Amino acid sequence: FTKYEGNPVLTPFDGLKDFRDPKVFWYEKGKCWYMIVSADKETRFYKSKNLKKWDYVSAFGKGMGQQPCQYECPDFFQLPVNGDKNNMKWVMTMNINPGCWFGGSATEYFVGDFDGKQFTCPDAKDVKWMDWGKDHYATVTFSNTGDRVLAITWMSNWQYANLTPFKQNRGANGLPRELKLFENNGKYYLSEDVAPEVYSLRKTTRTLANETVDESKAFASLTAGMDGAFEIEADITPDANGIAGIEISNNKRERTLIYFDMKQGKVVMDRTESGLTDFGKQAVPHDIELAWDKQLAAEGKQPARVVNSINYKNDFALATWAPLSLCQAGKKTYHVDIFVDKSSVELFVDGGRIAMTNLVFPVAPYENVKLYAKGGKAQFNNINVHKLAL
Amino acid sequence: FTKYEGNPVLTPFDGLKDFRDPKVFWYEKGKCWYMIVSADKETRFYKSKNLKKWDYVSAFGKGMGQQPCQYECPDFFQLPVNGDKNNMKWVMTMNINPGCWFGGSATEYFVGDFDGKQFTCPDAKDVKWMDWGKDHYATVTFSNTGDRVLAITWMSNWQYANLTPFKQNRGANGLPRELKLFENNGKYYLSEDVAPEVYSLRKTTRTLANETVDESKAFASLTAGMDGAFEIEADITPDANGIAGIEISNNKRERTLIYFDMKQGKVVMDRTESGLTDFGKQAVPHDIELAWDKQLAAEGKQPARVVNSINYKNDFALATWAPLSLCQAGKKTYHVDIFVDKSSVELFVDGGRIAMTNLVFPVAPYENVKLYAKGGKAQFNNINVHKLAL
Repeated sequence: FTKYEGNPVLTPFDGLKDFRDPKVFWYEKGKCWYMIVSADKETRFYKSKNLKKWDYVSAFGKGMGQQPCQYECPDFFQLPVNGDKNNMKWVMTMNINPGCWFGGSATEYFVGDFDGKQFTCPDAKDVKWMDWGKDHYATVTFSNTGDRVLAITWMSNWQYANLTPFKQNRGANGLPRELKLFENNGKYYLSEDVAPEVYSLRKTTRTLANETVDESKAFASLTAGMDGAFEIEADITPDANGIAGIEISNNKRERTLIYFDMKQGKVVMDRTESGLTDFGKQAVPHDIELAWDKQLAAEGKQPARVVNSINYKNDFALATWAPLSLCQAGKKTYHVDIFVDKSSVELFVDGGRIAMTNLVFPVAPYENVKLYAKGGKAQFNNINVHKLAL
Repeated sequence: FTKYEGNPVLTPFDGLKDFRDPKVFWYEKGKCWYMIVSADKETRFYKSKNLKKWDYVSAFGKGMGQQPCQYECPDFFQLPVNGDKNNMKWVMTMNINPGCWFGGSATEYFVGDFDGKQFTCPDAKDVKWMDWGKDHYATVTFSNTGDRVLAITWMSNWQYANLTPFKQNRGANGLPRELKLFENNGKYYLSEDVAPEVYSLRKTTRTLANETVDESKAFASLTAGMDGAFEIEADITPDANGIAGIEISNNKRERTLIYFDMKQGKVVMDRTESGLTDFGKQAVPHDIELAWDKQLAAEGKQPARVVNSINYKNDFALATWAPLSLCQAGKKTYHVDIFVDKSSVELFVDGGRIAMTNLVFPVAPYENVKLYAKGGKAQFNNINVHKLAL
């Protein structure tokens, strides 16, 4: 590398303070480079023939998706819908802080078309989350991965990233994920499943017998000796009006619950009793979110992050959820793939139609697994527990 | 003071390591001084004419009351039963660590007779707690208070005294308390009510209307502006099979519950969601308690402190309780007097027949009060809320 003497090659034409995180990609149709860059409450496209001189093209995002918000780390890529290469769509991913449904930072996306001038998205007022947990931010994709789009996320949230009881870091990356587009009720959504290369981490596998669960079936010490790094796969058929879930716990009465609530049409991850959670009391909302809180309070309403989460205790101790309407209509059985790695739980439902990433801080590794059902029997089939290691 | 050149005036005849906390009192009948001193798993009496030469008299306590245990800070005083000066009894109080019903340290007592040679207690196998909370230890009485016996306690527990999120101290003293003896079902018990001098701290008083509570009646901001230091008095008549309680909370979703559970015959204080509680996860049991845990585990049983407390989450996050059988039989209405002082909650039921002291660490002062009932209506009468200050 020789540092270019003409730096910076680009400054915002309006002197914006929040202008950052450029992502450069080759736009084959126009035979030139494009850059997408976050510009406060919108993203901007620039293009260039030589990567030195950049021309402004257009902007997108003001007032779109989740509001209020502020953008960071935008990304832009093309994907086939349902794998059909004759039906390619452009996807813009935006990391927003604040704006998370559950408070703080998160990744949303827009699906639409791009003609080299303007990105258009017919349902840009909709809010689409790439991941429904609280700890999935600054997600960007790799370049030069052929037809595949592979993303990597930072597992934390600006609400409490500086408060988490990590000693070694300020948040690790999540598992790499492969993004695909699927159509659901006439709209386009991203699925974010774990990249299949991750399966090579499976060291030992224990297959459990299929279980019809009335109340609960406990497997004490099932993941003992796995050092808190394991994967649980299962096909779960909850009662049509019931709750069916998996509890992972340690012997310190700390636990994370992952459950389907069929009456609510939600899959939920509850970390209220997952381990250390007091630090969440010190979380301070972003100024933008604080202003929003005040506005809602004036209307006699609770903060959105309180209302939108389940079992809210503080900004860390809460449950996150995703709507099961993202899965195929009429489904009765859901495939879950849960990756636990000491202080993270990454849930993938039905091949990533729902992804949900949450940090947890148990004081001892989770080593017990319990299947449970309420309000009706649940069926748990094809249960595999893998020890994960390098 | 001139330091006595013959110190120490007393050493244990058997070279015991745990020999400490002497309490000296004048024994009028024998016209001499007596000393009670903790000697590991018993207490010993010594007597002296000149406070210099001490003669061993007798010992008491081995295998008595709560087991296993270790004694500290013993005390010994005389009180009339039910105020009848013709029926005087001797009371030995013992601070034990471990031994607390709920884990860690606590204060128990024995009521009996003393003839200058031996303390005898007919029900010494019973366990009698001076206070039913987790934060009442090293309790001793003042000398030279005439006929009154006034005690002061240290509000903490050796399970977590070094972990509490206090910045200024390692535990404050509780409010001074006046001790009396009462007879209940043919046995003698200590009542420990707040010393009436404490009432002089009442600065402003708000009297609420009597309430018949079906589900709940909330008084938001009732104690706002009191800087977290207030007293709540009420006469509570729970439904015969119901639950009736008072919730004190702040606007950070932190709360302490004090409730009567009539089916269980218990009055309960629940601090599981009282504020900061994570530090309780680091609590380490005393070696003696740890050995006991192991013994119970070998029998397939949970640790006693887990079984004995309610809603156990960790050694701090739990609820403590006392049996309502300590109150007069056939009672339907209970008088509660609750003193909150930022990080402590001291509960006195029926003039101290039940005392319960627990630390709490809310991140903001408690300022909301809610009366609630479950499983039947409850009556709350004579509700006074006092602001407390010097």
